[in-house]
Amino acid sequence: MRKVAIVGAGMTAFAEHFALGIKDLLPMAYSECAASVDKGLAKTDVQAAWFGAMGTTDGFASGILADALGLPDIPVTRIENSCATGNDAIRNALFGIASGAFDVALVVGADKVRETPSKNLVWEWEAMTRDQAWDYPLGLIAPAGFALHVARYLHESPATREHMAQVAVKNHRHGVRNPKARLRFEVTLEQVLQAPTVASPFGLYDCAPQSDGAAAVLLAAADVADRYTDRPVWVRGVGLGLDSVMHQHKRDMTTFPATVRAAKQAFAMAGLTPGDVDVAEVHDYFTGIELMSYEDLGFADRFEGYKLLEAGVTSVGGALPVNPSGGLKTKGHPPGATGVAQCVELFQQLRGEAANQVEGARIGLAHNLGGPTAVSAVTLLSGPEE
Amino acid sequence: MRKVAIVGAGMTAFAEHFALGIKDLLPMAYSECAASVDKGLAKTDVQAAWFGAMGTTDGFASGILADALGLPDIPVTRIENSCATGNDAIRNALFGIASGAFDVALVVGADKVRETPSKNLVWEWEAMTRDQAWDYPLGLIAPAGFALHVARYLHESPATREHMAQVAVKNHRHGVRNPKARLRFEVTLEQVLQAPTVASPFGLYDCAPQSDGAAAVLLAAADVADRYTDRPVWVRGVGLGLDSVMHQHKRDMTTFPATVRAAKQAFAMAGLTPGDVDVAEVHDYFTGIELMSYEDLGFADRFEGYKLLEAGVTSVGGALPVNPSGGLKTKGHPPGATGVAQCVELFQQLRGEAANQVEGARIGLAHNLGGPTAVSAVTLLSGPEE
Repeated sequence: MRKVAIVGAGMTAFAEHFALGIKDLLPMAYSECAASVDKGLAKTDVQAAWFGAMGTTDGFASGILADALGLPDIPVTRIENSCATGNDAIRNALFGIASGAFDVALVVGADKVRETPSKNLVWEWEAMTRDQAWDYPLGLIAPAGFALHVARYLHESPATREHMAQVAVKNHRHGVRNPKARLRFEVTLEQVLQAPTVASPFGLYDCAPQSDGAAAVLLAAADVADRYTDRPVWVRGVGLGLDSVMHQHKRDMTTFPATVRAAKQAFAMAGLTPGDVDVAEVHDYFTGIELMSYEDLGFADRFEGYKLLEAGVTSVGGALPVNPSGGLKTKGHPPGATGVAQCVELFQQLRGEAANQVEGARIGLAHNLGGPTAVSAVTLLSGPEE
Repeated sequence: MRKVAIVGAGMTAFAEHFALGIKDLLPMAYSECAASVDKGLAKTDVQAAWFGAMGTTDGFASGILADALGLPDIPVTRIENSCATGNDAIRNALFGIASGAFDVALVVGADKVRETPSKNLVWEWEAMTRDQAWDYPLGLIAPAGFALHVARYLHESPATREHMAQVAVKNHRHGVRNPKARLRFEVTLEQVLQAPTVASPFGLYDCAPQSDGAAAVLLAAADVADRYTDRPVWVRGVGLGLDSVMHQHKRDMTTFPATVRAAKQAFAMAGLTPGDVDVAEVHDYFTGIELMSYEDLGFADRFEGYKLLEAGVTSVGGALPVNPSGGLKTKGHPPGATGVAQCVELFQQLRGEAANQVEGARIGLAHNLGGPTAVSAVTLLSGPEE
């Protein structure tokens, strides 16, 4: 397969952007991405785009991206894959370049989650991400559905609510250093454990906030990457895994087969193993999901994810820092943008330019899980010297 | 680029499927597709899928496809690109195979348009396909928006409402022979011209009906295609074109730049010209759109599309039959399925198996336009002997 690099990356702050529309956020992310291209980017260099957007409250997504960026003469495909939308957009753009159809393609992800013309926002978004005939009328929206998994996981593994709280403490500590994060304050273990319950076992600080945001990466084929930078970040592997949508079909609540499948594909394509990863952005929409995902991603043995937290392995300064950006936990989760923003963070980490730098990071992994627990995307990147 | 073939194709009838859910329609289309594979298809051969779906009234689209087909262990990406959704799904699957990531991929398109849990169905769908801040509140839903183009076109070209009516007469005549079409009756020129006005210059018979339906094609890389058939249909070119979303930004109402861009890409990839096309499925959501598209696709010179109708060129029996299936005009237009269904028709045409066969057809073209007049997809196919 033709080798593909990320040669530019940028994002808006993830925040309550009440005063900004999607047509503001898109060019803001694009501008930062274009400005990060070492040797400059002419808009006419962009041959195609993929737009990760879960919502359509602004209307026709592909056309609005093209219009907002002044690029109506290039093809734009909208990708929607629930919480995995952003990384799946990168995956499809990679295929476009690897096929030889294009040399340079833009990936943008964006969503406005905090408001909508309709009054039923949360329910509309939740309805899109599950089976409307089954899980949705049963009330299995995101916190409730994930809570079923984590409750069973806590029952079967040695992990406790304290380990979940350690994820929150860690990611809040990381997020303080990220100017693009929304909840830039530290929390203590006690605060997390004593916070009001959202859906047991999740308290308030076990949950990510709802934020608006946009993110963009510029992909280029290896043979043209040096027109843009001498420090490309390589897309080494992509994976997309699914699973049954309805909870009554899940055979084991303590693991997410979607993640296992996505990771297997990405590692196989990259010729890498979980032990090669130096830094990861993991889908911590709820703290327990990061904990469980350590195992599904191959970072820990089954029911031993908690040991990484106890030993500080996944903190910046540890052997495998997870969510140095502060994660979804402090940024929030506009689904179209989240996966792309993870790769923006990894682009900066692997070039040694991150706000909360992981020293010497050479291999990075981005991971999403959602829809609900029925889709996962994994992207593996490596630094310029790899 | 790695050569890719269609080795199987099938679809449901396009109809008012009030009694069937999306979970019924998906396996019906898949079954017919699998049954059309000459040497048989094992479900385990399918390595990845792309799902063209504009609506999400059933919930999480990718996961529902995987569940409905019993394929939760393969990656499924949902593509949404308004009326061009189906052909853009094929385009992305083509990139997936051409990149080398997969050898065999399934493309399914489906939508249920005739009903929804919400009471505001038509408006929800229309809102998704235009700019909600501008064209949508101005009332520029599909008939109204397209009517502005066609009215101006009739003003500037020698074409008349009678030429539009000839499109309806032709496509209804074709559709009578297609068991999958919905409006299987002939209409006369007088009936079309005297029908009640929907949005001037469109009368009732200038408009396509709203139908539910699903369609599927199986794509395989050239080097494995002979495992499935000795009569593959080749995907020679794909194109996706955009244009400004808002009508106030259109520079010329008498042409659709999205179509021109999509066709240019597809012909360039295929190394073919419009003169090579033997049969075409053109986006006749409204009769005037087929007429105008003759010119944007390169089948006629500017403002001379009407001559093809007067000479019978685009009827079955003419030199370039357009919409031998009966088109959207008699099938209806479930947007996710429409483009895939066009390629199902062309697959059968290019293998000499169509219900309304175009004798000796070797090159086929599928075309969508929508969103509104802001996106077009074109797919070029060739027969087994090409």
